[in-house]
Amino acid sequence: MNHKIDLNCDMGESFGAYTLGNDQIILDYVSSANIACGFHAGDPTTMRETVKLALEKNVGIGAHPGFQDLAGFGRRHMAVSPQEVYDLIIYQIGALYGFVKAEGGSLKHVKAHGAMYNMAVTDAKISEAIAEAVYKVDPELVLFGLSGSEIIKAGGKIGLRTANEVFSDRTYQPDGTLTPRSQDNALITDPQEAIHQVIRMVKEQKVINTAGSETALKADTICIHGDGKTAKEFARHISISLEEAGIEIHPIDKIV
Amino acid sequence: MNHKIDLNCDMGESFGAYTLGNDQIILDYVSSANIACGFHAGDPTTMRETVKLALEKNVGIGAHPGFQDLAGFGRRHMAVSPQEVYDLIIYQIGALYGFVKAEGGSLKHVKAHGAMYNMAVTDAKISEAIAEAVYKVDPELVLFGLSGSEIIKAGGKIGLRTANEVFSDRTYQPDGTLTPRSQDNALITDPQEAIHQVIRMVKEQKVINTAGSETALKADTICIHGDGKTAKEFARHISISLEEAGIEIHPIDKIV
Amino acid sequence: MNHKIDLNCDMGESFGAYTLGNDQIILDYVSSANIACGFHAGDPTTMRETVKLALEKNVGIGAHPGFQDLAGFGRRHMAVSPQEVYDLIIYQIGALYGFVKAEGGSLKHVKAHGAMYNMAVTDAKISEAIAEAVYKVDPELVLFGLSGSEIIKAGGKIGLRTANEVFSDRTYQPDGTLTPRSQDNALITDPQEAIHQVIRMVKEQKVINTAGSETALKADTICIHGDGKTAKEFARHISISLEEAGIEIHPIDKIV
Amino acid sequence: MNHKIDLNCDMGESFGAYTLGNDQIILDYVSSANIACGFHAGDPTTMRETVKLALEKNVGIGAHPGFQDLAGFGRRHMAVSPQEVYDLIIYQIGALYGFVKAEGGSLKHVKAHGAMYNMAVTDAKISEAIAEAVYKVDPELVLFGLSGSEIIKAGGKIGLRTANEVFSDRTYQPDGTLTPRSQDNALITDPQEAIHQVIRMVKEQKVINTAGSETALKADTICIHGDGKTAKEFARHISISLEEAGIEIHPIDKIV
Repeated sequence: MNHKIDLNCDMGESFGAYTLGNDQIILDYVSSANIACGFHAGDPTTMRETVKLALEKNVGIGAHPGFQDLAGFGRRHMAVSPQEVYDLIIYQIGALYGFVKAEGGSLKHVKAHGAMYNMAVTDAKISEAIAEAVYKVDPELVLFGLSGSEIIKAGGKIGLRTANEVFSDRTYQPDGTLTPRSQDNALITDPQEAIHQVIRMVKEQKVINTAGSETALKADTICIHGDGKTAKEFARHISISLEEAGIEIHPIDKIV
Repeated sequence: MNHKIDLNCDMGESFGAYTLGNDQIILDYVSSANIACGFHAGDPTTMRETVKLALEKNVGIGAHPGFQDLAGFGRRHMAVSPQEVYDLIIYQIGALYGFVKAEGGSLKHVKAHGAMYNMAVTDAKISEAIAEAVYKVDPELVLFGLSGSEIIKAGGKIGLRTANEVFSDRTYQPDGTLTPRSQDNALITDPQEAIHQVIRMVKEQKVINTAGSETALKADTICIHGDGKTAKEFARHISISLEEAGIEIHPIDKIV
Repeated sequence: MNHKIDLNCDMGESFGAYTLGNDQIILDYVSSANIACGFHAGDPTTMRETVKLALEKNVGIGAHPGFQDLAGFGRRHMAVSPQEVYDLIIYQIGALYGFVKAEGGSLKHVKAHGAMYNMAVTDAKISEAIAEAVYKVDPELVLFGLSGSEIIKAGGKIGLRTANEVFSDRTYQPDGTLTPRSQDNALITDPQEAIHQVIRMVKEQKVINTAGSETALKADTICIHGDGKTAKEFARHISISLEEAGIEIHPIDKIV
Repeated sequence: MNHKIDLNCDMGESFGAYTLGNDQIILDYVSSANIACGFHAGDPTTMRETVKLALEKNVGIGAHPGFQDLAGFGRRHMAVSPQEVYDLIIYQIGALYGFVKAEGGSLKHVKAHGAMYNMAVTDAKISEAIAEAVYKVDPELVLFGLSGSEIIKAGGKIGLRTANEVFSDRTYQPDGTLTPRSQDNALITDPQEAIHQVIRMVKEQKVINTAGSETALKADTICIHGDGKTAKEFARHISISLEEAGIEIHPIDKIV
């Protein structure tokens, strides 16, 4: 039996006169697109164009809501209440849903962005707020989040399908959390090593942690990055390598 | 046979720490609420609260999209393309739809705000962009616009139900357009006169224009204002006066 | 010998169509106005009008910079770097300086707003960034901050005059910090008690803390609030009470 | 006797995670930098960095204020009043002034951006508002504007030095105005032709208009573009060509 995995990438992060990412090309390799919803990045025109492109390329469309912090690209932690996060999530899912509906497609998943994603890893209340917001808008949506983290638990509890996300280019600590970026060994810079880690995670549901031992880990979807000089190459590379390793790339709703 | 009319008011225009309007009270008198969608006014939290309140009071919910100009409250004309307007409309309808869906309600209508509303009166291309955006998101939505104007034509052409809107506190010119605010006689400040005008418009589909003669005019919905010192009183007053005149106030989908 | 104190209030917090505060009246009672600079509140037009009003009423003008979070009124903690805070401060002081210069006045002080103010209480690096930004723009400016806190130390270290700020309506803990708002006894709601606390702080440089004992405390300026239903009354009340107690109200540059 | 000209370029248009332009390289060739002030583009951090870079490279620093329309890059005409424009200009000059002061430099000029620049070409009231704002902040500042247009007249009238700006890559109509971009012959795409036009404008104060005849034209400063693929090359090319033609490039305050 073949293994299956979803490959996701953040998309639609351009804004007005500003262009970011390589959406057109990356969309050839991924099965899920997390589309920015105008708060940390993206704008209505970019959203429409990205939705259209994703539909053309048969890539699953997800909302990628974040904090209302364009200047900080949604990467700065903000002291928001669960209620505020709930409201932010519903607004942004709705906004993207408008374009998906207008283009005749359907919305498949939701993945929080940046600082909101990170807060949801450990903060149960924020995670529950996100999960509830997603559920209330559409209980068929799949909720993405860091593998094994609070958001995954919150999603399961309320009755959503969840997608455990793993990273190809980040190292893991013995407890299964990502090594903080502030540490030297946080990133995997060698593409080959990154791909080996991913293949192991998919096939064995394990990762070699920073202590050199194995940590169990569920992998439903792999996050790859769409910006940066090597993004296009790496997207192609990981896509080919997964298939060579007998791992099929499928949209998330074929997996969870 | 009794006459029927919809009574609509702009709502949900508060933003963060800033409060505007008297939504809670006005909602007791109107049948349709045009809820700001976060661009010219409103924010996710205000939208959720306003949607909830409108559902509790059984008032029809509509999206009230505007230009992305919070500093100017969406009242400043901006040189946007039809495509930009289309994108703005879809985004904002979608955002509000998120809250309506989450609260278990349904979205009934769309009315452009401020400068966008005014552009749609005479600009056929902008009107067609708005109508297409509304239709693409949901062809069951009712499109509001100035009685007899381009947006009404554009809505009809694409297959939307439209609501011809009239104003109680504005005077009309012989050609059926509103007297520009720059002119002295633009506003009707006497509440009794405003109500007389409205009753005539509903019952006779006519208005006494600024030249003193009659102009034919279709009236499906009356716009009243929710802010200002006398807003609450006037809302009550017009509501009672209409009923006394044998005019029933009904949500727009009972009318068009 | 008479005691002297500065009385300060946040001002210019209106934004576009949204009005906040009672600036015109409060300006009759205070000696320093902290004017919002367009990031957490305020806009260019409000800034010009508030500067003009303060000059007419001979009130000292200060910049009141905050986080770029209009939706949260700058009250939400954001994970910004010292460098980012430095840049935010310079930008906002400069913007207000433009209006002060155009109106022929001079800028007297700077007080960080909301979450930025609170961060500066305990975070030495953020405080140093603020102090450096103020100093670099104009070393003659007075830096306001919570009495005895990190920002006061940072200001002194770089060579700025500093103004130790005390609050009439907040209780103090034995260590001289404000009781967090999350605690029941954080606020003093009785105006008379608030005024007693302030008079004691000015005359004796002491406060009765929440444990019932005395804490030493430097008081150069008192913060009063400009919004809320009783703001106008309280401003008048505290102003009269201070003078009756033999305490003269003077602009900050007559005091530090 | 040698001819002299100022060479100016828009700079500091990056925003948060978004990068635009080639400031570092272009600054080697120009004598004046028009730095975005955070409304149509730019942010506090970008402003600080750009000011610092310009000072290092001994390039004259100017404020480049625009409409508060980041989504439209300040290129969309907005129906603002002269008072609103006045306020926008003062705010943005002030904000940039903060950084210039903090870095120990001095502000040399002001050039309105995008739609505001275009409005100032023909609208005398808007032009007077801009000129007054600049004058009120600092009467020593040089006001840039389209050669011979309303803004130049308004600047002269209030007592500012003005810089008549010409474009290398735009064609001119017989009346000395730019051919609208909507027309086919609006742009000069051949770099050699662009440079010939500029040299003629500087040396002869004349341009060959779209009708093939000569139009008199004052040229104090040439605008070049900093973004686009060929921007860096063209900056170098025009800089060398001017010098070869015996035209010295000098900061604006050596010229007007």
